[in-house]
Amino acid sequence: MAGLDHTHDPGLRSWVPGADGHADFPIQNLAFGVVAPSGEGPRAGVAIGAFVLDLPGALAAGLVEGEAGRAVAAMREPALNGFLALGAGPRRALRLRLVELLREGAPERGAVEPLLHPAASCTPHLPARIGDYTDFYAGLHHATSVGRLFRPDEPLLANYKHVPIGYHGRASSVIPSGQPVRRPNGQTKPRDATAPLFGPSRRLDYELELGIWIGPGNALGEPIPIGRAGEHVAGFCLLNDWSARDVQAWEYQPLGPFLAKSFATTLSPWIVTPEALAPFRTAPAPRPEGDPQPLPYLDDPRDREEGALAIDLDVVLTTPALRERGLPPHRLARSDARHLYWTAAQLVAHHASGGCNLRPGDLFGTGTISGPDRAQAGSLLEATEGGRIPIRLDTGEERRFLEDGDEVILSARCRREGFAPIGFGECRAVILPAL
Amino acid sequence: MAGLDHTHDPGLRSWVPGADGHADFPIQNLAFGVVAPSGEGPRAGVAIGAFVLDLPGALAAGLVEGEAGRAVAAMREPALNGFLALGAGPRRALRLRLVELLREGAPERGAVEPLLHPAASCTPHLPARIGDYTDFYAGLHHATSVGRLFRPDEPLLANYKHVPIGYHGRASSVIPSGQPVRRPNGQTKPRDATAPLFGPSRRLDYELELGIWIGPGNALGEPIPIGRAGEHVAGFCLLNDWSARDVQAWEYQPLGPFLAKSFATTLSPWIVTPEALAPFRTAPAPRPEGDPQPLPYLDDPRDREEGALAIDLDVVLTTPALRERGLPPHRLARSDARHLYWTAAQLVAHHASGGCNLRPGDLFGTGTISGPDRAQAGSLLEATEGGRIPIRLDTGEERRFLEDGDEVILSARCRREGFAPIGFGECRAVILPAL
Repeated sequence: MAGLDHTHDPGLRSWVPGADGHADFPIQNLAFGVVAPSGEGPRAGVAIGAFVLDLPGALAAGLVEGEAGRAVAAMREPALNGFLALGAGPRRALRLRLVELLREGAPERGAVEPLLHPAASCTPHLPARIGDYTDFYAGLHHATSVGRLFRPDEPLLANYKHVPIGYHGRASSVIPSGQPVRRPNGQTKPRDATAPLFGPSRRLDYELELGIWIGPGNALGEPIPIGRAGEHVAGFCLLNDWSARDVQAWEYQPLGPFLAKSFATTLSPWIVTPEALAPFRTAPAPRPEGDPQPLPYLDDPRDREEGALAIDLDVVLTTPALRERGLPPHRLARSDARHLYWTAAQLVAHHASGGCNLRPGDLFGTGTISGPDRAQAGSLLEATEGGRIPIRLDTGEERRFLEDGDEVILSARCRREGFAPIGFGECRAVILPAL
Repeated sequence: MAGLDHTHDPGLRSWVPGADGHADFPIQNLAFGVVAPSGEGPRAGVAIGAFVLDLPGALAAGLVEGEAGRAVAAMREPALNGFLALGAGPRRALRLRLVELLREGAPERGAVEPLLHPAASCTPHLPARIGDYTDFYAGLHHATSVGRLFRPDEPLLANYKHVPIGYHGRASSVIPSGQPVRRPNGQTKPRDATAPLFGPSRRLDYELELGIWIGPGNALGEPIPIGRAGEHVAGFCLLNDWSARDVQAWEYQPLGPFLAKSFATTLSPWIVTPEALAPFRTAPAPRPEGDPQPLPYLDDPRDREEGALAIDLDVVLTTPALRERGLPPHRLARSDARHLYWTAAQLVAHHASGGCNLRPGDLFGTGTISGPDRAQAGSLLEATEGGRIPIRLDTGEERRFLEDGDEVILSARCRREGFAPIGFGECRAVILPAL
């Protein structure tokens, strides 16, 4: 496995209380983000257990120097774009230094400790200014299930297994976890209506995706070869691509989803780096028998070996009634990032193949990651077969689509024998009623 | 007609040589942009005849003060986003002050003259950082002609006359006029091929559009009522939505155009303001008999009266052979912005209707503006009926789609009895061979 070093040692321990064995952010993770501690302005930070280390503070205190210091100095504005642009070298140098500062017995503990903020008292911000947001459709089972609802005879279109299908999304309405989402109004045309209506969406849905943060960019007109595509990936997060299915059905032809998706997209606020994910790299799921080989510009031997990520994904729902009665959230789905048909490197290489320029801080969504079974469906559209089969909750409530006050929470976990598990933090939002 | 004042007086004259009667930029226009004078850095400027007035220079010289001065002070970075965010008040104040400074007999002439740069020696930049770029499909005749190529029986889909159809475009690859465009490589699937190929697009096309610059934005979740939508429009430009038709045909289902459009979009670099365009406001073309009325959120009495713009549009082509032989450019199309089915205000109100937030410096494309006749076709796809009927040039050359070395030039002119004509400047780019 490439890129492993002492920072991945499962025996590595931190002096930060609760960091060892933390579900998301043990010292082996060290995810980067931007947060505003209570009553203070936003700044760059690194997640460690249930705390956030103030990185500009660490720089000012002389705790990070050299290449690692330059990495923190690039976290201006506060947004991580300048840091993302630097690529793997400074990112790794900073990781190494952070392990030195945060590991058990670190002599700098006394200087670092005052720079820790309890994560619970921090407001998450987006980690970077997103230049462009592209949403792909790389979840094979999602594309098949959704396609079957619309085209029972031809669920997957002829291009699907050749072209990493994607579309441009809306960057302005990407928001960090925790910010509520207002149910959109929009044009819909019920099947029995003679004319369209304008009003609140009645088929509000979530979509379980991974987000991919772009690091160094490429110049306009200059493609990125597949063998170097990984160098342009700065990290991963969770992404909920909220979707108004009734608006989508009426508006999407012939140019694709537009307002049905652009009212909000929620991200988990931490960038989990390729370094942290190195132990969880794996071969993509084998292509189904008879599937075409990727064209050469999408094919790379190393990517075939370890281009995918073993990430368990989890979606739960809480409703006002569940919360009032103190009942646990209802699990909507468990899935796995290995269900993606295309790797992150293939998405990057395809996106740039015609010369389109990527910029540091651009965001990709992978597309909804569903497994083959209904319990692995990454959207309600799939789980309820287009709203036909309701989900029953412990309160006796039913859900075909999301109702006001519902909250959807995505989480993820990477596990591998011999390594400390790491996670992504939460990606959550509650639905507000339409205006 | 609303918003007319002495700055629209056709008798108004300027001391700037050649400004009076200038095809694009007489003193009645005063379009804003960002240019780099020869050997110098980019800065905000206003176009006057064949010159550009350095606006930060005018501010530093004490020539603009008060509200007009604050408008120039907002043109930081250098990008006009801060200025666009201010809306109509400061924009009008600056226009009034610029007329004072540039009109015949202005006592400030001696102080202003050193701040003029010949436009020919200036490199145009994009006038603003584009947060998000949305491309609409509001050209009724274009949608009909293109639809007919794909679906002879149902050229317009059922949603077209109800929903202002649009999709998110790529902001990173929007470039200013003059910058060459490299022919993209991409996946295509020729009709007789059993598998897709990757290589240079063979069906490279242009699209004649207007661009709409967004001024003040709206908060996420808060729609913009149609009656106030005009306040969010900061100006207009020309937009060439370069398109690789063969890539588009293979990739666009089910999520819309993606790499076929994201390799380059060319803009004319000047923002022509709503104030400059006030004399050219007009009623939209009458809707064809039997068309549905717009839903209330898209319907406004004033917009019905004067929501459209009378702008003549012009597209010419030069080829290496035409240029070598000193022959004039070949006219590809003449069209008219009145062929748009939706007004700018309707596009703004629709975009924000579900709560999507617009930000200052966002860009809309209207969609290709074709007329009903082939000589008014705003793309080669339409003019050659999908490549079946070639265009013949004076050199004896034929064109079905664009070839390397070809240059497409869009221009526009607003004319109305009793007013000085104004234009937009050029939107041009030459095609470079694929890598």
